[in-house]
Amino acid sequence: MTVLVERLAVIGVGLIGGSFALALKETGAVDFVIGCGRTEDNLRDALAMGIIDDATTDPVEAAEGADVIMLSVPMRAMAPLAKQIAHVLKHGAIITDAGSAKEVVLGELFAWLPSHAHVVAGHPIAGSEKTGAAAAAPDLFKGRRTILISDERTDHEALELVKKLWEAVGCKVEIMEAGRHDLVLGAVSHLPHMVAYALVDALLNWDNDLPMLRFSAGGLRDFTRIAASSPEMWRDICLDNQHVIVEAIDRFIEVLQSLRSEIDKGDGEELSERFSRCRKVRKRIEREDKA
Amino acid sequence: MTVLVERLAVIGVGLIGGSFALALKETGAVDFVIGCGRTEDNLRDALAMGIIDDATTDPVEAAEGADVIMLSVPMRAMAPLAKQIAHVLKHGAIITDAGSAKEVVLGELFAWLPSHAHVVAGHPIAGSEKTGAAAAAPDLFKGRRTILISDERTDHEALELVKKLWEAVGCKVEIMEAGRHDLVLGAVSHLPHMVAYALVDALLNWDNDLPMLRFSAGGLRDFTRIAASSPEMWRDICLDNQHVIVEAIDRFIEVLQSLRSEIDKGDGEELSERFSRCRKVRKRIEREDKA
Repeated sequence: MTVLVERLAVIGVGLIGGSFALALKETGAVDFVIGCGRTEDNLRDALAMGIIDDATTDPVEAAEGADVIMLSVPMRAMAPLAKQIAHVLKHGAIITDAGSAKEVVLGELFAWLPSHAHVVAGHPIAGSEKTGAAAAAPDLFKGRRTILISDERTDHEALELVKKLWEAVGCKVEIMEAGRHDLVLGAVSHLPHMVAYALVDALLNWDNDLPMLRFSAGGLRDFTRIAASSPEMWRDICLDNQHVIVEAIDRFIEVLQSLRSEIDKGDGEELSERFSRCRKVRKRIEREDKA
Repeated sequence: MTVLVERLAVIGVGLIGGSFALALKETGAVDFVIGCGRTEDNLRDALAMGIIDDATTDPVEAAEGADVIMLSVPMRAMAPLAKQIAHVLKHGAIITDAGSAKEVVLGELFAWLPSHAHVVAGHPIAGSEKTGAAAAAPDLFKGRRTILISDERTDHEALELVKKLWEAVGCKVEIMEAGRHDLVLGAVSHLPHMVAYALVDALLNWDNDLPMLRFSAGGLRDFTRIAASSPEMWRDICLDNQHVIVEAIDRFIEVLQSLRSEIDKGDGEELSERFSRCRKVRKRIEREDKA
């Protein structure tokens, strides 16, 4: 395809940033990628895998002259980065990100970045518990959704370009406001992770008194996979989407308490009805995926 | 291998009963299998797949003359079945099961079955959200654990035979008392399922106000898979392991509340520590699997 971006800087060449660069290079939408990271080993991996064409540990060097800058670092690292690179951004540079919560970060990016650069915040609904450039894969985003944020501050040409990039790597793009994103993702992604962490932690405590973890079957294994996600990333999501996550946990506990009460009363009919209703959700999501 | 059982009756030719019969026939440990089920379509599948050699919808016909009878039906169906087949059991017949909770069912089986038959309760820690004979697979149990129950009522020769059958299909067998089984499984299996059901149900409610389910990513998909398990089976598990499950939910809610409070306070340090601790559990379980 035609080149959409001459020079892309990826700051944080991990699973998400690495896969984004790799997929874009494969489609030909991007001409040159400079990768910036904290550890040289990871950058060496990224160079060897052809994810990036050049590497640096200095964000300023990466950002200078770049047309598009992808910030794919833990969210609490984004504001300091923005502050650091602000003075070298070229006119019309687009700064985008892949963070899992948008309202707080977006405010920080707009606060630190100069008005001659454009901020287009984004969030690909993809990933895994793996981390690092070595886990990058060009098909990570194929068939997945990416949410891009639009509000009164958004430059529409910049938004259109970032949309084309995500479409080039195989995503369906949906555009919404930051608050709505944070509410939806707080529910369907952040809450499940909190529940998985709490479950694994509760069993870890209990296992001290009564060894049980070795009897874990399929169900628990899925939870331990989710709870093996990056602690740094999930700490930042908790800090940046605090209020929504707290509300989501409260809603969840209310439902769990009502299930607990049905079990306590031995109410087989209510239990059957609830379990049957839940069973249908999987099929519904599969249908919506195809839509 | 040498024939361990001449005539095996499988009552309930679903995922578990069907896979058990199929795997035993493949190893040659069982000579003849009669399958009993409620629906003729499912029995036809089982005959066509070579899971069973003969089929009936009458449990009495299946049990008559059988050396080993596997009850792989929802747990609340076991006592009525035991009552129904009690009078045709041959001397020394072994009745075993694959139910997910043991103390209640075991009491019922001993109450209904004649003393010239032997009860050996069991629970293979395997399965999936799929149901029916069509989902049966001979390798379902390979490398998994099966728990067999032993107490002062257990016949040791019968226990030894059932142990050999589970080993023949590839399981590691552990023997323990029913109460311990129910506590361990209540924690590592029943609790995760209740948590998954409550999460899916909470999001189902929330989705009515704010469409969100189509944004579900990997984490939530695992939960919806678990919550797609058989409603009938899980209703019975709730009824038969009521007290343990209620205790497990209470323990879990306590941990989730403490996580909620860390998020509410924005305590990044505590959050990182908790998430890092949970991340290690997956590797630990993998190590214990190999041990």
